[in-house]
Amino acid sequence: MRTSRLLLATEREDPSDAEIVSHRLMIRAGLVRRLAAGLYTWLPLGLRVLRKIEDIVRDEMDRAGAQEVLMPAVQPAELWMESGRWDHFGPELLRLRDRHERDFCVGPTHEEVITDIVRREVRSYRQLPLNLYQIQTKFRDEVRPRFGVMRAREFIMKDAYSFDLDEAGSRRSYEAMRDAYRRIFARTGLDFRVVEADSGAIGGSRSEEFHVLAESGEDDIAFNDAGTYAANLELTPAPPPPSRGPAAETMREVSTPDVRTISEVSRRLGVPPERCLKTLFVEGDAGPVALVLRGDHDLNLVKASRLDGVRAPVALASPDAVREAAGAGPGAVGPVGLGVPVVVDRWAAAARDFVCGANRDDAHLAGVNWGRDAPEPATADLRNAIEGDPSPDGRGAISIRRGIEVGHVFQLGRKYSESMHAVCLDESGRARTLEMGCYGIGVSRIAAAAIEQSHDENGIVWPDAIAPFEVALLPVNAHRSGRVRDRSEALYEALRAAGIEVLLDDRAIRPGVMFSEMDLIGIPHRLVLGERRLDEGAIEYRRRRGGETEIVPLEEAVAHVAARLDRRSGEG
Amino acid sequence: MRTSRLLLATEREDPSDAEIVSHRLMIRAGLVRRLAAGLYTWLPLGLRVLRKIEDIVRDEMDRAGAQEVLMPAVQPAELWMESGRWDHFGPELLRLRDRHERDFCVGPTHEEVITDIVRREVRSYRQLPLNLYQIQTKFRDEVRPRFGVMRAREFIMKDAYSFDLDEAGSRRSYEAMRDAYRRIFARTGLDFRVVEADSGAIGGSRSEEFHVLAESGEDDIAFNDAGTYAANLELTPAPPPPSRGPAAETMREVSTPDVRTISEVSRRLGVPPERCLKTLFVEGDAGPVALVLRGDHDLNLVKASRLDGVRAPVALASPDAVREAAGAGPGAVGPVGLGVPVVVDRWAAAARDFVCGANRDDAHLAGVNWGRDAPEPATADLRNAIEGDPSPDGRGAISIRRGIEVGHVFQLGRKYSESMHAVCLDESGRARTLEMGCYGIGVSRIAAAAIEQSHDENGIVWPDAIAPFEVALLPVNAHRSGRVRDRSEALYEALRAAGIEVLLDDRAIRPGVMFSEMDLIGIPHRLVLGERRLDEGAIEYRRRRGGETEIVPLEEAVAHVAARLDRRSGEG
Repeated sequence: MRTSRLLLATEREDPSDAEIVSHRLMIRAGLVRRLAAGLYTWLPLGLRVLRKIEDIVRDEMDRAGAQEVLMPAVQPAELWMESGRWDHFGPELLRLRDRHERDFCVGPTHEEVITDIVRREVRSYRQLPLNLYQIQTKFRDEVRPRFGVMRAREFIMKDAYSFDLDEAGSRRSYEAMRDAYRRIFARTGLDFRVVEADSGAIGGSRSEEFHVLAESGEDDIAFNDAGTYAANLELTPAPPPPSRGPAAETMREVSTPDVRTISEVSRRLGVPPERCLKTLFVEGDAGPVALVLRGDHDLNLVKASRLDGVRAPVALASPDAVREAAGAGPGAVGPVGLGVPVVVDRWAAAARDFVCGANRDDAHLAGVNWGRDAPEPATADLRNAIEGDPSPDGRGAISIRRGIEVGHVFQLGRKYSESMHAVCLDESGRARTLEMGCYGIGVSRIAAAAIEQSHDENGIVWPDAIAPFEVALLPVNAHRSGRVRDRSEALYEALRAAGIEVLLDDRAIRPGVMFSEMDLIGIPHRLVLGERRLDEGAIEYRRRRGGETEIVPLEEAVAHVAARLDRRSGEG
Repeated sequence: MRTSRLLLATEREDPSDAEIVSHRLMIRAGLVRRLAAGLYTWLPLGLRVLRKIEDIVRDEMDRAGAQEVLMPAVQPAELWMESGRWDHFGPELLRLRDRHERDFCVGPTHEEVITDIVRREVRSYRQLPLNLYQIQTKFRDEVRPRFGVMRAREFIMKDAYSFDLDEAGSRRSYEAMRDAYRRIFARTGLDFRVVEADSGAIGGSRSEEFHVLAESGEDDIAFNDAGTYAANLELTPAPPPPSRGPAAETMREVSTPDVRTISEVSRRLGVPPERCLKTLFVEGDAGPVALVLRGDHDLNLVKASRLDGVRAPVALASPDAVREAAGAGPGAVGPVGLGVPVVVDRWAAAARDFVCGANRDDAHLAGVNWGRDAPEPATADLRNAIEGDPSPDGRGAISIRRGIEVGHVFQLGRKYSESMHAVCLDESGRARTLEMGCYGIGVSRIAAAAIEQSHDENGIVWPDAIAPFEVALLPVNAHRSGRVRDRSEALYEALRAAGIEVLLDDRAIRPGVMFSEMDLIGIPHRLVLGERRLDEGAIEYRRRRGGETEIVPLEEAVAHVAARLDRRSGEG
C-alpha cells in the first residue's frame, strides 16, 4: 500500500474525551472515529488491525473444530422471554419495535438464538459435540460509554457456543476452547494470563477469563512466574499463616490523639505495620460484624462476602453504627472487649504483641495478645494475596498486575437448554437436556488492549501479528531525487513479492513529519532510504520497539526484514 | 472438511413459505434458517458461500483502489435530519431510542455517515479521489419480507462511496467501480448483464444496474448478443418503424360479437395481429388519452408516462370512462372518429389496411388507413422492445430475459455533500462541494440469485467460484470396507494438499442418501470411491452440471479434478 492511496487521518491534538492511552492513540493515529457516544467507525488503518485479529481468531476456532455461522443481529423478543432474560436484562439491552409493533432487540449476545437453532436442528447424539461460533457486531447500551472502543456500545465479538450430551463432553469442549484461546492470544503477540474467574464450586461449572496485562486494566491479576497459576486477585487464596510466637509484652493503653491511619499508628508507636491490626466494621445480617486484618494487608471483598452473617455485596458500616457498637470512631476500634461478632484474618490471628484500637477515641492498645487480652478468635482467609506470597499451587511466588479482560470461557450447564427445552436423544434413545458452554472474545477490544500494553511516548508499538503493516518504507525527499524514488519503488515491489506487508510513504513531505507519523501509527519495522546511504549502497533499518538503527546493504534489505518478522503460525 | 464435523442440516420437505426456488433450496440444503420474518441465520454451509462472495468483492474493490472501512450499524438520527431523510424515508427505516431517549436507526444505507466522516477528514484535493467501502449487515424493515434472503430485512451489503472534486473525476470513479463490478460478477461465474437504469438525461448523473439473469427475476432486461447493449426493458427504445405502404383496401365495418382480444379479432377476420391495432385509454390531465399500438406489441408504461398530458404513473381509464369517451366498451374502441387526444405508437402508425374497434359494441372496422379514414396521427415510441428487434446501438438483435438486481452503481452528484456541507479546497484554495457516487452489491442476495440461475430438479448447481466446497469425495460403504476407508482418507489428504476444497462424506450412510444429499447442496465436482472401481485401481468422477461419469485412474484423481476447476483470478 502507498500512503498516497490510504486515508491516513492522523491528528496532532489529543481528543478531549480520551481517558486512557489506547483511546487517545486510536484517534490520533486515525484508526477509528467517533460517530456518537460509544459508536465508532473503523477507518482503513484500524480495520486492517481488526481483520488480522479476526483472521487469527477464525483460524484457531476452525482448527479447534468449531463451525462458523452468522446469526441475525436483530432478535425477536419471544426468545428472550423464553429464557427469562427479556425481563431480567437491564437497560443495556437495546429494545426496539418493528413497523408491525413487534418487540425485538439488537443482540448483545446470542445464547437464545443459538439454542433455538440447535433445538430445531440437532436430534441425535451423533450430531454432537457441536460448537458454533460467529464474529459479529454486538450492541450493549452502556449507560456511560467511554474508553473509546474499549467499552463501546457497538463492538465486534467472537461468540461461540458448545453443545454436548453430558457434563464430561461439555468439559472436553471447554478444554478445547481454552486451548484455542491460548493459541489465539499467543499468536496476537500479547502478554496475557488465563485467570480463574470462579471458584469452580458452583454447580460443577467452570469459568476462566483471558486478560491482557496492562497498567490501565480494571482487574488485578495474581499469577506465578511458572505460568501454572493465575487468578483474579479477588479469588486468590492467601497462603497459610506463620505460626504465632509466644507473648512477650503486657497489654498497655497509649494515648494516640490525631492518629488515624495504620502508618501513623506504626510511626507513633514504633511498631511495624504487620503488628498493627486494623478492625473494619461491615454490615451484617444482625448488626455490624468486625473484621480484623494486619495493617499491611487489604481486605478482600469477595472473601468477606462469603462469611456467614455478612451481607453481600460487602458494605462498610457507617461511622455512627461503628460508634454505637464499639464506643469509638472507626480509627480507634479493636477486638479487645468488643461486643459484636469478630472474624480475624488468619495472618492477623498469627500476630503477637500487637497494636489495635482501644475502642476509646484517641487511644490504642499495645502489647496485645490473642487468648490472653482478647478471646482466641474465629479466623478466615480475609486478605488479598500480595506480591511475593507463595503461589497457591505451591510453585514460586505471586506477582500482581492489572489486566484487561479480552476473553471468557464458561461452562453454562443447562441454564438455557433447560428453559428452552433443547434436548437430544442419546445412544439408548433417551431424551437428554444438552450441556452448553459459551466462549467470548472481544475482537475490537483486543486492538485497544494491545495499545494499552504496547506503546511509548511517540505512539503505538504494534506486535507484528496485528500491525496494520509489517514494514514502513520511507524514502527521504523522493520528490527531489529520482534515484531515491526509483530505488524505493524497486524495494517496494521486492518486499511485496516476498509477501511482506509494506506501506510505502510516497508523499512529498518532510522526513521528520514522515518519521513521527509512522511512529504514531506504530508500524513495527522501518526502512529509511536516502541519498547519503544510497551512496554507500545501503539502507537504514530500525525496529519500532526501542531498536537501534542498523545500516544494511540495499540488496540484503528484504532478507534482513524477513528474518526479523515475528510470524507465529499457531502450531507452536 | 468432513461431513461428520459439519452441521449438515438438509431437509426432505419443502418449506411452506417458499415462493421461489432459491428460498426452497437454501432451506432444504441447510444454508440458512429463518429466525423471524425476514431474519435468517447463515448455517456453516451457507456462510462458506457468503464468505467466498465477500472475498471476491473485497479483492476487486481493493484492486480498484477502494479502501475498506466499517461504520456503525446503529446511526444517530441527527445525521439523517441533516440530509432530510429522517422525515422522507418511509417505515422501512428501523428507528429506535437508546436508554437516554435519543433517536437512532439501524442503517439501511450509509450515505449520511460516510459524508460526515469525509467532511471532517478530507480538507484538500490531495486526499482525492477517495473511495471508501464496507461489507456490512444492513436492515430494511420490509412491510412483507419474502423470498428468503432475496428480500430479507437483515441482509449483507457491500456499499461503497466515492468522493471527487469535480464531475469529470466523479465520472472516472464511477467507471472504475463499473469495471470492478464487471470483474466481480464475472468471477462469481454468474450470467449477468450491466443494465442502464436511467436515461442519463437527469442532471448529468448516471446509473447502471447489474442483473443476474434468471426466470424468477423481477425485471425484464433487453440486451444484444454482442454485449454492447443492455437496459431495463422499460428504458429500451423500440427501433424506427418500417415505412408505410400504400392503402389497398377500403374501410368496412364487420360485426364481431363475442370478440374481445386481439387474437380473437385476428382469427375471426383472418388478419395477422400486426395489422390489428389496439386502443388503450389511460388517465390524462384533462380526461382520458387514447394510445394505439399494434396488436402484437405491448405498451411500455415508462414511455407512456413521459407523454405530455398523461398522468404518471400510468393508469388505465375505467370501462365507464372509456364508454363515455368513445361510446363503446374497451374491446371495441379505435382511433376512427374518436373525440379524445390520440397518440399512436410509431409502428402502429406505419400500418395500412388495418383492423381496429369501431367505437360501437360488437363491431370492428377493417381496411382502415391513416390519413384517409382517420387523421394522420401524433406518434411516439410507446411499445416495449421485443425479441429480435434491432439493438438500439445498431449491433445485432435484442434478446429479452428476466433479471435479479444484485448491484447498482450511481453517480450521486451533490445530493448529500450539499445538504451536509462536505467541501474541500481545490488547487487554487477555493472551497468546492464534493461530487459523490454510491455503489452497492447485495452480497447475500448473490447467493440466492446464483441458485435461481443455476439449479436442477435434484438441487443446487453452484458455480465453482462460490460453491461451499469444490469437490465432494464420497466413499461407498467405507464403514464396511477398510480398503475404501483408507483410500478415501489418503485421497482426501492429497486433495487438501493440492489446495482443493474437498468435503469428505465419512458418515456410515447409504450411498443413495449420500449422493442425493450432495446433489442437493450442489457441490460442483464429485468423486465416488467404491470396492468395484478400486479393483480396477480407478475412481468415478462426475460434474454436478449434467456431466457424464468418467472412470479415472486413482492416481490421476487429483490432477483430473484440478484440471476441471473453474478458478477465475479476476485478472482476465
